[in-house]
This record gives sequence, C-alpha cells and structure tokens, in this order.
Amino acid sequence: MSERGMSYRDAGVDLDAGDRAKDKLKALVASTRDRWTLSDLGLFGGLYQVPDGLATPVLVSSADGVGTKLKVAFDAQRHDTVGQCLVNHCVNDILVQGARPLFFLDYLATGVLDEQVVTQVVGGVALACKENRCALVGGETAQMPDFYAAGEYDLAGFIVGVVERDRIVDGTQIQEGDVLLGLASSGLHTNGYTLARRIVFDAMGLKVDDELPGTGRSVADELLSVHRSYMPALWPSLEEGSLRGLAHITGGGIPGNLPRILPAGLGAVVDRGAWEVPPVFRALQEAGRVDRFEMDRVFNMGIGMVAVVRPTDAAHVADTVRGAGVDVWMLGRIEAGQGVRYLG
Amino acid sequence: MSERGMSYRDAGVDLDAGDRAKDKLKALVASTRDRWTLSDLGLFGGLYQVPDGLATPVLVSSADGVGTKLKVAFDAQRHDTVGQCLVNHCVNDILVQGARPLFFLDYLATGVLDEQVVTQVVGGVALACKENRCALVGGETAQMPDFYAAGEYDLAGFIVGVVERDRIVDGTQIQEGDVLLGLASSGLHTNGYTLARRIVFDAMGLKVDDELPGTGRSVADELLSVHRSYMPALWPSLEEGSLRGLAHITGGGIPGNLPRILPAGLGAVVDRGAWEVPPVFRALQEAGRVDRFEMDRVFNMGIGMVAVVRPTDAAHVADTVRGAGVDVWMLGRIEAGQGVRYLG
Repeated sequence: MSERGMSYRDAGVDLDAGDRAKDKLKALVASTRDRWTLSDLGLFGGLYQVPDGLATPVLVSSADGVGTKLKVAFDAQRHDTVGQCLVNHCVNDILVQGARPLFFLDYLATGVLDEQVVTQVVGGVALACKENRCALVGGETAQMPDFYAAGEYDLAGFIVGVVERDRIVDGTQIQEGDVLLGLASSGLHTNGYTLARRIVFDAMGLKVDDELPGTGRSVADELLSVHRSYMPALWPSLEEGSLRGLAHITGGGIPGNLPRILPAGLGAVVDRGAWEVPPVFRALQEAGRVDRFEMDRVFNMGIGMVAVVRPTDAAHVADTVRGAGVDVWMLGRIEAGQGVRYLG
Repeated sequence: MSERGMSYRDAGVDLDAGDRAKDKLKALVASTRDRWTLSDLGLFGGLYQVPDGLATPVLVSSADGVGTKLKVAFDAQRHDTVGQCLVNHCVNDILVQGARPLFFLDYLATGVLDEQVVTQVVGGVALACKENRCALVGGETAQMPDFYAAGEYDLAGFIVGVVERDRIVDGTQIQEGDVLLGLASSGLHTNGYTLARRIVFDAMGLKVDDELPGTGRSVADELLSVHRSYMPALWPSLEEGSLRGLAHITGGGIPGNLPRILPAGLGAVVDRGAWEVPPVFRALQEAGRVDRFEMDRVFNMGIGMVAVVRPTDAAHVADTVRGAGVDVWMLGRIEAGQGVRYLG
C-alpha cells in the first residue's frame, strides 16, 4: 500500500476520463435526435415519445453484440466499423418483424478507457443510427479493469422499433409454393468469426494486412466489412405488405434461421446453384477444410436475409431490392415438410 | 490442423449448447410475461404492445452493466444475484424520470458457455423482472472464446419503461428550500467494486468466505448484496405527484448524481450527520485509507436514492418509504448555488 490512501484512479477507474468521454459523445448523440427524442445524454434514462399516428403500436426490441469480430478490429486497430455492424444487425432483427427503428442504446465495456477508441466506436454507432433513422438515446461506457485486456472492449446494443399491430410480419401467412428471395450479404456480417479467425490467422497464418487469397482484398478489409442493413432495400416492400416472412441469416445460417418463421407443416427447399457463394467463404472452406453442412450453419454464405413472398410478388420485390443496390436471387420455394432441404 | 476439417465447435463455439441454454431460458422468460407481451423467445425481436390508457406515452430507456461486482460473483461462484442487481439498477434509472418498467432484455457474453451458470444468471434477471412487473422479452447469449477467461462473463441489460408525458420527473420543479430525502442502499449496489476489491482482497488480504470486519457478514454476502429496487418504496409517491426530483446514486456518488437533476442556480446542502454510514463503507475507508471526498464520489455511502420533495410533503413521503421497509433520512435541503455542499 502506498503512503497516501487508495483511490479509484489508482485502482484503474478514471471517473474524469469517463466524464470527458461522455462530453465527446454528446455531440454524436445529438446528431441522431429526431422530433420524438425528448432527452439528451446525461439524464438517467433516454426519453422517446411513442410516435403519433399508430392505432395499436407494438414495440419490437432486440439485444445483440458484435462477437469476436471485435478481435479483428483490435488487430487492425480500426474501431469505426464495429458500431455500424452492431446497429445494422439490430435493425435487421426488428425489420424481420415489420418494425422500423425508433431508438438505440449501446453498452461499451473496456479495461482501460481510451477516449479516442470510445469516440471511434460510438461514432460508428451514431453514423449507422443516422443512416437507419434511429435516435441514439443513451448508453453505458463501463470501465472494468482486470476484466478486459489492454486495448480490448466488448460492445453490445439494444434497439427498439415500432410496428402497427396488424402489420406484424411473423411468417404465419407463408404458404406452400411461396418464393424464397435471398438478399446478398456484405461479407461475414457478425457471425462465425471465432472459426474464421482460427482459419485465417492460425491455419492460413495470415496477418490483417495480408491479402485474403481469392478476394483481392486485405484480411482486415474483408473481415471488417460492415454488416449490411436491409432497411433501405426492404422497407418499400414492407410498406406495400408484400413480404410474408423475413429471416435474418445470423448464427445458425439459413438452416438455423429460416425455419424459425415457417408455420408448422412447411419447410423450405434451397437450390445451392441459385447464387454465387462469395470468394471469402470459398477461401475459408478450403483452407479450413470445413464440412459443407458446417459452413451452412456457421456462415451466411453470401445470403444475409431471406424474404418469403407470393410467387406473383417475387419479381416486383426483387426489382425493388435491386433498385436499392442489393443483389437478390430466387433461392427456392416453400414446400410441405419441415426445416431446410438443400438441392445440389 | 487435424486430419478432419475445422469446425465451429473445435474453435470453441458450441451452437448445440447455445440451443440447449435457450430452451432452458424459455421457461424463465415465459414466467415474466404480462398481457402486453406478444412474443416468446425465439423470434428475432421481442414484441411488446404499448399499454392502453396513456394520452401521450413517453418511453424511458436505460442500458447498464454490473461492472466488476461480477468478479466477486466469480470468486464466490454465486451467479444468482448479479442479474437481480442489473434489473434493479435499470429499474431505478428509469424510475427517477417517473417511469414504470415495461420490458427488459439482457446481454450475456461468456468465453465458454456453461449452461448452469447461464441459467443462474438469467434466473436472477427473470426473478427481478417479476418483482418489478417487467417482462423479459429477449436477450443475447454470446459465446466469445479468447475474449473472456474461463468461468467469467460480462452481463449488460436494457430496460424500457413508460411515463405519461406531463408526468415526467426531471427536476425542473425543484425549488429553494425543498427537502432532500435519502433512501437507504442495500450495500455497495453496483458501484465502486474495482476499488472495493483492491481494498478487500489486496490490502486486507481477505477471501470471499472471510468475515468482513465490522459487518458481521462474509465478504461474499456483503459484496454480493442485491442492488435495491426503489420501485416499491417510491411508486406510491410518484403516483401522487409528490416527488419533484429523484437521483439514483450510482458511480459519482451524491456529488456526481444529485446535481444532474438540479435546475440552474440551485445546489444542495447535505448534512453528513443525518444518516449512519453503514459498516462496510467504514471498513473500506479505514483499510484503504481512502480520502473522504473520494469515498463520497466512488460509493453510495449508504444512500442509494435521493428524493427531492416540498417541505410539506417530506413527512408523508418518508412514511410511505418506511412503510415499504426502506430506511429514509432527511439529508438536507435545496439552496441557492450549485453542486453539493457537505455539512460536517
């Protein structure tokens, strides 16, 4: 024990740095305000008025993290994209129930608080909130020494959106013969990174600045690609009411996520030849000699979202998605049965 | 590289264990449902209908963690209380704006997923949700190998509550001469643990099962005391409209939190002799030779919530709080000035 008494700062928690970081975040938070946002950062809770004009508003919420994609961000010392991944992931998780985002909160836990890193991370959160028209109403930045290694942090997020009760999308209207549209992912999104890192860094022996074979991009560029928000591509079709079901393809892949929205007695048939699996997945599969079934379950394989539509709506919905700059393929159909059956 | 190909499970992520844990959590989640809860766990987002009967409903939200109090839970291998701390902390953070809880989501990140630990942690979350009449509508359980040490996890939570717009409590009605009521904390709550652990485990050299001198309780019992929810004690007074301001005393203590709700030109005078500082804080201060100002800023010092009331309401509000089994003291008054001025 030192001559003078013990302090929080000596123990590793710097309340002043916490306050300074909070000041820097204020402007980022303010940039996401909309007409329903009633509070600034600094009060104990975020205040957001339920928007007018909904007969029976239902709140749709989701919590998520970025997983070990963060480890790639640490290695590459690039902290501005993971916050975008987090927000977009959460946006997709409520979009699949027909909801549009209202507000977002983040949880950022660090060992030692580095104001620059915090500002970069939360900057990414705020940017994606603006892109998705979502107010960032609060969050927690925790200093947890002995918990996180130097230069590391964990990041989680919480979103709340709204949908009119009779417009909830839950898959119950899906029928035999409906068409599966697969929307292109922008890379691994936020799933499978523990396996991907083992393959890329251990089995292939690459570093973040090396080229990932077959992709024409560096490991960092490829593995830190921002998880795509499907809000711009799908919102017009949601408003039209032409989507019978949506599945966000996250951990578990198509086989783990698509069946979650299918009514009892219905399954899906997916044609492997319907879309081109992007090079990053081929590279991972080959270098790790990963079983095909395992690949399907761990990674999105190039499809980040599946929309289930009436056959007569398929072309129109696909055109709308393409018009928003997102590739889309007809993956297959709904059939009697259960689960996902692959062709090819 | 082994003869056979690489798999997610070998890399440290067990999707089957994740599914099994999710099944166990379903019953816990279901036990918290109320009439506005529209979804079960398993869909992508949680669904909660905005309750009827509010003219202009405002959603109040907060994100928080448990901090390094978790380290004590790891040492004591007691995982059933930290979830309660998390929920109650969040409940208090929205209660201070006049809101009652609607729903909650948790984020639990582990290195290796231990189903029993997950069930204990989320069991605590569900229990406190029930106690606070809050639906647990979802959450994320993340497996992040290489990120968290074996047996360790991080836990964050997110709450959404509701308040009628013209009933928001924000301190703007606070006037000179108003009375400060201090409500007893149930221990350290969830703040100051990084310093407390240094003092107890390093300076004092104690183990979790040793008695914490002066408290008559073990280190584990004292340091894992559940963060108190002030919902039962304060809700009646909130409904009556007799609370002009509420400050949840978390990181920063009274000096860091009370000024957040005071209108410009007003400060608070707090009489140190007004309440008995509990033995745990005295023990920490002495053993760590911690400066008094530092103690005030890092710990709650026995006061977990401060309510600001009209002088004519003070006795009645105090009686209501006591009636709910929570000790309460008149700490001081609002005066012209700024910040917190201590007497004694």
